[in-house]
Amino acid sequence: MPSISTKGQSMPESPIRKLVPFAEQAKKNGNHVHHLNIGQPDIETPQVALDAIKNFSENVVEYSHSAGFESYRVKLADYYKSVGIEVDSSEIIITTGGSEALLFGFMSCFNDGDELIIPEPFYANYNGFSTASNVKIVPVTATIDTSFALPPIEDFEKMITPKTKGILICNPGNPTGYLYSKEELETLRNIVKKHDLFLFADEVYREFCYDGKEHFSVMNLEGIDQNVVLIDSVSKRYSMCGARIGAVISKNKEVMATILKFAQARLSPPTFGQVASEAALNTPQSYFDGVITEYVERRNVLVDGLNAIDGVKCPKPSGAFYAIAELPIVDAEKFCQWMLEEFNYNGETVMMAPANGFYSDLNKGKNQVRLAYVLNVDALKNAVKCLDEGLKTYKTTIEKSTVVPASAQ
Amino acid sequence: MPSISTKGQSMPESPIRKLVPFAEQAKKNGNHVHHLNIGQPDIETPQVALDAIKNFSENVVEYSHSAGFESYRVKLADYYKSVGIEVDSSEIIITTGGSEALLFGFMSCFNDGDELIIPEPFYANYNGFSTASNVKIVPVTATIDTSFALPPIEDFEKMITPKTKGILICNPGNPTGYLYSKEELETLRNIVKKHDLFLFADEVYREFCYDGKEHFSVMNLEGIDQNVVLIDSVSKRYSMCGARIGAVISKNKEVMATILKFAQARLSPPTFGQVASEAALNTPQSYFDGVITEYVERRNVLVDGLNAIDGVKCPKPSGAFYAIAELPIVDAEKFCQWMLEEFNYNGETVMMAPANGFYSDLNKGKNQVRLAYVLNVDALKNAVKCLDEGLKTYKTTIEKSTVVPASAQ
Repeated sequence: MPSISTKGQSMPESPIRKLVPFAEQAKKNGNHVHHLNIGQPDIETPQVALDAIKNFSENVVEYSHSAGFESYRVKLADYYKSVGIEVDSSEIIITTGGSEALLFGFMSCFNDGDELIIPEPFYANYNGFSTASNVKIVPVTATIDTSFALPPIEDFEKMITPKTKGILICNPGNPTGYLYSKEELETLRNIVKKHDLFLFADEVYREFCYDGKEHFSVMNLEGIDQNVVLIDSVSKRYSMCGARIGAVISKNKEVMATILKFAQARLSPPTFGQVASEAALNTPQSYFDGVITEYVERRNVLVDGLNAIDGVKCPKPSGAFYAIAELPIVDAEKFCQWMLEEFNYNGETVMMAPANGFYSDLNKGKNQVRLAYVLNVDALKNAVKCLDEGLKTYKTTIEKSTVVPASAQ
Repeated sequence: MPSISTKGQSMPESPIRKLVPFAEQAKKNGNHVHHLNIGQPDIETPQVALDAIKNFSENVVEYSHSAGFESYRVKLADYYKSVGIEVDSSEIIITTGGSEALLFGFMSCFNDGDELIIPEPFYANYNGFSTASNVKIVPVTATIDTSFALPPIEDFEKMITPKTKGILICNPGNPTGYLYSKEELETLRNIVKKHDLFLFADEVYREFCYDGKEHFSVMNLEGIDQNVVLIDSVSKRYSMCGARIGAVISKNKEVMATILKFAQARLSPPTFGQVASEAALNTPQSYFDGVITEYVERRNVLVDGLNAIDGVKCPKPSGAFYAIAELPIVDAEKFCQWMLEEFNYNGETVMMAPANGFYSDLNKGKNQVRLAYVLNVDALKNAVKCLDEGLKTYKTTIEKSTVVPASAQ
């Protein structure tokens, strides 16, 4: 039997999905599981997008252009203008989700062994795309004490080597929900310019900014337009993760021409998803207003509820729909598994993502969990109550001899 | 400005798409272009698949399982049983087209620099997926004189080195249309077993077999079930290239577990495409009977027409919907460009794919073109007439001093 590749062996398993079998068991045991573990929004997809699919009238489901439908790219450029980003449709390539945008971007910009600096905790799948492209992730650690703000620029400077080729940020952040300020981004701009690096920015949560804070795009950083590669997706914006439509955007013509060659090899992005995504650009502002109001209320219920639990610490995020909480336990992965396998409160339990999967080293963030507030307010209240009861039981039965206050770890 | 990667630089451009600007010019000049250059069928997508899309009734377009919808995989296993291939749904992972199946398969099975033997001419995008995965393609050349039959197994044996890790075939073949016999596949089985190689087989044209010949799947080769990786797609079978739904299938659990990790990193295959593909499994046999009848008639019109042209040689293929023709000219790429830029016959011209893009070396197959018979019979007749007239003009005006009979090249 021939052996699998070393790359295949080193591909990480999804930290979000590895507890799935325990959740399935919890359900078989008759318990209701509150899924705070995955960023699958429950928000309805805009009706205009669903209608476009229902009205699909072609008789042959053809390939599109490898860069995506021309009509979609033209309208997408208008959308970017409407959020203050000046791009031409020729500076946009439609991809199969933000995932493919990252993979093609990495393969086009980074040689085997090149180093990519990423503030951690970071979106776990960056590990996967880096492994697939032979890129080495160099983490710079953000801390819960600063609500996961951008680490001091000296921390980045210290990690620069001759192999450093880029920096990747997610703004607003998954898993932290932190929204970088213009000032933070300008410090990044300086280091990018100084060392002539690529700056990849995953801005798929652009619309999800709260408390009157505004999103500032890396596309508007001055003097580095040849360095910036923007990653985008319709998945969260229009609550249509399954459409698998994203985009990669850059003013760097050589980067775009190279990405197009990878895009040609896979022929085209999905046709149905593009039809839905093009139509989704006509979503009325009232839809987004409603969504933002809903998420702010959810965030408040979840984060305020968590901080009211003894020993739990959870910074209130200004963007996206995630929060990281530190729990008064030693090993969040064991606790998350126990919550599914052993615990229920009135027939309910909570599924969370252990946060160590969002760090480059599984020994970091061991007492943290990531929570996605993708359930309605009532469900979130029940989930918080459940977690509160779960922590009490866990501390008095399982970790009774080993409890260490979170602040002392 | 940071430089792009060496991998990006070495990614091949699509040989099928690089003449596109000249075709656009021909259209602007008022000429009708017969597109024989690309495998985009004009056959209608089955109504059951289109209806499923029109009836999509979910309110949220969610991610599916990373391996694809369970319900789709279960029905797909039944489909394979119906064509004589015994697989369990757990041995199937749904991918974003056959393209992603190849990429994940290569990355899971091959280390950087590993060698993959492919009979050439081969589907041009195998070059792209190999470059993306750092795999080295080692070609074994098939010739037009044998209608592109499997080259003698000694030719494969000669190319085996300590770095050889796999063999890839496409059956029936794109771009040759050749259908490998059971006997040919059994010689491959022997070499795969002897050297413990992976055998990748792209069987996306399985249903397109003519003249009473039957397709034999590599899944039914005895004694190498841990070596075989099957690549499939709905694109051609149901004429829905734009759905971007494929599959990778193997009995090797380690390979499948590894591919699943790559699949998890990109979250899920497209939801709409899966809905259409699951429904397409209910396509009545009458649909396929009609399609096969249509393709046989088209093939005969095209191939017989080509062979009637002075100096043209075109073996009659038994599968897929492509043919490779040798033309009585020196440089098919120049000729194809000329046909678009300079020539028309009654306001019509033909777009073909220069066949050298389907070889590992652009100097091979220089006087060959690949033709896809994806137009109706009347259009094909006109295209053949156009090509006939074009060749006459080209030979008497452009290549008048350099014409060499094809057989002497």
